[in-house]
Amino acid sequence: MTAPVRIALDAMGGDHGPETVLAGAEISLWRHPDTSFVLYGDEERVTNVLKSHPKLAAVSRIVHTDVVVGMDDKPSQALRRGRYKSSMWRAIDAVKLKEADVAVSAGNTGALMAMANFNLRTMPGISRPAIAAIWPTLRGESVVLDVGASIGATAKSLVEMAIMGSAMARVLFDLEAPTVGLLNVGVEEIKGVEEVKEAARILREEVVGVNYRGFVEGNDIGAGTVDVVVTEGFSGNIALKTAEGTAKQLGSYLRAAMGRTWRARIGYLLARDAFRVLREKMDPRRANGGVFLGLNGIVIKSHGGTDAEGFAAAVDLAYDMVRNELLARIEKSLVGRQPQVVAVSRPQAAGVEGQS
Amino acid sequence: MTAPVRIALDAMGGDHGPETVLAGAEISLWRHPDTSFVLYGDEERVTNVLKSHPKLAAVSRIVHTDVVVGMDDKPSQALRRGRYKSSMWRAIDAVKLKEADVAVSAGNTGALMAMANFNLRTMPGISRPAIAAIWPTLRGESVVLDVGASIGATAKSLVEMAIMGSAMARVLFDLEAPTVGLLNVGVEEIKGVEEVKEAARILREEVVGVNYRGFVEGNDIGAGTVDVVVTEGFSGNIALKTAEGTAKQLGSYLRAAMGRTWRARIGYLLARDAFRVLREKMDPRRANGGVFLGLNGIVIKSHGGTDAEGFAAAVDLAYDMVRNELLARIEKSLVGRQPQVVAVSRPQAAGVEGQS
Repeated sequence: MTAPVRIALDAMGGDHGPETVLAGAEISLWRHPDTSFVLYGDEERVTNVLKSHPKLAAVSRIVHTDVVVGMDDKPSQALRRGRYKSSMWRAIDAVKLKEADVAVSAGNTGALMAMANFNLRTMPGISRPAIAAIWPTLRGESVVLDVGASIGATAKSLVEMAIMGSAMARVLFDLEAPTVGLLNVGVEEIKGVEEVKEAARILREEVVGVNYRGFVEGNDIGAGTVDVVVTEGFSGNIALKTAEGTAKQLGSYLRAAMGRTWRARIGYLLARDAFRVLREKMDPRRANGGVFLGLNGIVIKSHGGTDAEGFAAAVDLAYDMVRNELLARIEKSLVGRQPQVVAVSRPQAAGVEGQS
Repeated sequence: MTAPVRIALDAMGGDHGPETVLAGAEISLWRHPDTSFVLYGDEERVTNVLKSHPKLAAVSRIVHTDVVVGMDDKPSQALRRGRYKSSMWRAIDAVKLKEADVAVSAGNTGALMAMANFNLRTMPGISRPAIAAIWPTLRGESVVLDVGASIGATAKSLVEMAIMGSAMARVLFDLEAPTVGLLNVGVEEIKGVEEVKEAARILREEVVGVNYRGFVEGNDIGAGTVDVVVTEGFSGNIALKTAEGTAKQLGSYLRAAMGRTWRARIGYLLARDAFRVLREKMDPRRANGGVFLGLNGIVIKSHGGTDAEGFAAAVDLAYDMVRNELLARIEKSLVGRQPQVVAVSRPQAAGVEGQS
């Protein structure tokens, strides 16, 4: 038997605090009994909540922290106030100290990324971290990155994202050679920003082992045209939020239409199993959890406003990433491909090859 | 009685050519009988198709053109091959020569924008044109720009877009002071790119008459949080295409769910009027038509792949923009606000105030 997956939880993160975090962890524990938890947060409050979760209590230990990073704290403020002592920092630090395999927080994204980046540092060969989202598509699911770790991207960092996203898709979807596309405003090679065009050239000509398929557009994400969609964080975040908004909008149209007439209401009742399936497919909680990629450790960001079911999905994701050795696979992918990438953007840095 | 709206049509543009363009024009003509058309295209072909549209024929004249801009032509190629003589160029040129009030084309966006920009030139005080889309929202409709005229934007051009988008929303939605938001990755003032932050500052502190409400995120577009959403063309295009893709995806989920069981199918039949309403609400043809803003003349871009009903929506939009004097209103808005804007980004150009 393999060792349990050790998950560090920021028990104070998110809009609803320990109640949601612990309830979510217990749901996930039912699905993956080979998990143990370290809960960082206010000891009294966490202990109290834990009383209603005896199953979770049996595999958890609490580490008391005084400081909570606020949902509206700026990253710099969070670092200043929360470094070394906040529940968020300590959960990340557990990963660094190898006391946990992965950290999960529903706290504010900017602060979490700043702390994770500051404490774990980027992997050798990676210029900066990215946040990867799992996107439900017509053909299953795709990995989309970066959905908001940083704004703008060089050709080099887009290529790194293609490599990391491929590794994640391999782990997550059990694919040999996941297909990769660069998000652009047109499928013709003539369009788009210089960085995206240069990244396309590098992926086509110089990177081995990434199954690069060319440019994709916004509508290709939901269609599932490729398994991995790569873009910089501004447009990636806007794409993600726009899709969420559109789904909400159409759900609301549907509800209104089904309540319009008696016939429609009866029709709705008859078809309610079908609507339940549809609702589940559209449930944003199912795809909850952004994966921070490119750091020396895995950190998962849950939506701050999610409920226990949604937080459980983020914990499931954390479990999967560890169980399937995401980090080792990314490292392996980078070692295999790094020389080509480095040769392009920093031809003078020949020593980097020796980093493995 | 006011004079009819004179519409120049690129009869050869789009995936389906004159058949769709003329059929669409006739549908729109039923709705707005005070319209006349100039049809640019292959005379024989257009004459032939026009035979099945006697009502349209009665208010149209044909101008023969030899050259057709291809749907995949690069903008530079289209300009080289099609300047002065293509159906697309001539339709735009009719606006320049005041022979028409507006031009509509379903031809390729890059070529159409290049030709429109080259021939009509930007309005005084506008640094570059933008494409505005009408976006169906939970609260009605919003104007979103730029959805792909150019990549990247300075603070100045974002502010110009806010002014032009406001004018368009005033015309289109009959609002006194349409609300305006800048698309960003976070609602907190700390996030986002420098240009967006600077544009926010200018709109807040220096521009009079734009009802600026702050940053909005991708999900705010479909929610209809503001009447006008301003962003640069790369992210705007990705947002638009992503929303289209998500709508398609959910429509497909819905169809699958309603066919799953006999109960669902019967429910679907009972509720079919409701589903028809829903389908109409989700119909992308309803919102067909991108408005080129910032040029000395109005040009409307229809989706290339649309059918007659979709093309008719683009012609309707052209009619509305002329009837409600979009151009004059933008000019008026610019005159009122230009000094402030110019004072910020080019403090030395005091002479610009005299342009009005």
